[in-house]
Amino acid sequence: MSIDVLQDKIRKMKNPVMFGLDPYLPILPRHIVQEAFAQYGQTPEAAAAAYYRFCTELLDALADIVPAVKIQSACFEALGADGICQMQRITRYAKEKGYYVLVDSMRGDIGNVAEIYAQAMFGSVSIGETSHRLYDIDALTVNSYLGSDGVKPFLPYCKKEGKNIFLLLKTSNKSSREVQDLLSGDRVVYTAMADLALRWGETMIGRHGYSEIGAVVGATFPQTMKLLREKYDRLFFLVPGYGAQGGTARNVQFAFDRFGHGAVVTASRSIICAWQLTGSDGTDYLDCARAAALKMKNDIGKFVSIL
Amino acid sequence: MSIDVLQDKIRKMKNPVMFGLDPYLPILPRHIVQEAFAQYGQTPEAAAAAYYRFCTELLDALADIVPAVKIQSACFEALGADGICQMQRITRYAKEKGYYVLVDSMRGDIGNVAEIYAQAMFGSVSIGETSHRLYDIDALTVNSYLGSDGVKPFLPYCKKEGKNIFLLLKTSNKSSREVQDLLSGDRVVYTAMADLALRWGETMIGRHGYSEIGAVVGATFPQTMKLLREKYDRLFFLVPGYGAQGGTARNVQFAFDRFGHGAVVTASRSIICAWQLTGSDGTDYLDCARAAALKMKNDIGKFVSIL
Repeated sequence: MSIDVLQDKIRKMKNPVMFGLDPYLPILPRHIVQEAFAQYGQTPEAAAAAYYRFCTELLDALADIVPAVKIQSACFEALGADGICQMQRITRYAKEKGYYVLVDSMRGDIGNVAEIYAQAMFGSVSIGETSHRLYDIDALTVNSYLGSDGVKPFLPYCKKEGKNIFLLLKTSNKSSREVQDLLSGDRVVYTAMADLALRWGETMIGRHGYSEIGAVVGATFPQTMKLLREKYDRLFFLVPGYGAQGGTARNVQFAFDRFGHGAVVTASRSIICAWQLTGSDGTDYLDCARAAALKMKNDIGKFVSIL
Repeated sequence: MSIDVLQDKIRKMKNPVMFGLDPYLPILPRHIVQEAFAQYGQTPEAAAAAYYRFCTELLDALADIVPAVKIQSACFEALGADGICQMQRITRYAKEKGYYVLVDSMRGDIGNVAEIYAQAMFGSVSIGETSHRLYDIDALTVNSYLGSDGVKPFLPYCKKEGKNIFLLLKTSNKSSREVQDLLSGDRVVYTAMADLALRWGETMIGRHGYSEIGAVVGATFPQTMKLLREKYDRLFFLVPGYGAQGGTARNVQFAFDRFGHGAVVTASRSIICAWQLTGSDGTDYLDCARAAALKMKNDIGKFVSIL
């Protein structure tokens, strides 16, 4: 079970953090951008090459202290084919380094189209008599506003191939209330979504008691998180919104069960852009990222003990 | 206003149809696949080249009778970088042929990430002192489960650059009821979403009375469509679910206002795979697609008169 793999990696490192790679040029250290421009000109190819270097150097620097990585698909898509090419390579690099790898693409489509997408991301693409593996990942974020039809194509990969999907329940942004908090009988939209997530994953419960179908629950709403944690003890939480968006270690404690299990907290900018806060030229960005990741681990550790 | 451009194209051709390009190898005529394999081997590059040929030949064949095209991003993403490369080329080809071009990617993210994506899809990507235009499109589908934060990054492009977004309200699949039909006070989730869509687009109303922010409303729920059309007379509807999914000409009539305006009906498989119903070897796929597109135009024309 893939969700067990994630939990075991977290236990081994005593660190429930997933760091996020969402590169774009203004946050990259100057030396990386300049060297890529020198080699490829001011082109999407250069930008994508710079992303690859930035991401793989970070993956090297954090591999012994952070168990999981989240790769933001949109940042790579924004460079077109060059970006996608490097994103594919980065997923494989991250797996080789031992990370649990999630691609954050928040896709949600139905039927045949969702099947094609699920197969390409989680399996292999068949071309004639050959098959081609584009990505090597453990998990995807999925937007399930379309209901079961949008989720079912992913389920065989969760059931048989040890993959996970994380469904958007209650996101970390302020305006998430506009749709997600709508009251419906004795539920709100996000608990209705949680009920669906439970149902879709009910035959896929791992050793630690969590389902292969997880849920995205923002760090910025601690009371909501607490209620969800109590009610949905089978749903593993992916928790965005830490750091830059205002979520704190005190907040995220509510995402965990009494064993310190059941959640992973994501942070992107506060780790990968940590160098920008030091006034340095960025040549020390890996040291800064490492220090920020260790600080986050320690901060959460004040509130959460992982057994 | 881009929504006026779409309406004017529809009026000129007296055809409210947007045909969908969602290629994958099993639906391509054999000769296209074989020739691509002969040139590039059984590789993602070959598949992507076959998609490009298939799509551009269809764009040529339908340019004088169909005003708009929907490109299914996931099909191209499923080939990785090679697919994205050809999708970029196909959007530009379609624009040159005079189509209103929508990319169906159903994305929904927030803040900085959504901004990066919106800029790449609707504008240009800045790299050093250069800027690079990857796509040439008029519209995107957007999943707004995350609320305003997920939509706002697209609004400047709608307001200033003549772009449209179509938000998912009520999708054509059966299980759409699981989330979208949840009752909330005197509304359901999809009407709450419609209220938001109206608000986001209220300062962007075109000559024909429709907002630059449109809505996806499935052809498979005619009564819902009728109610939505009556209540939301500013929302232009993108109507999937015709043909293969069970939506009929009789159903989709309810998407239009009394001038025959305010909606575009999409169809993919029933047009681009029409050749598969004839028992042919696929060499006549363009003739079959053209015949199917004309039949769809005529069928809808029995119920809808476009003034």
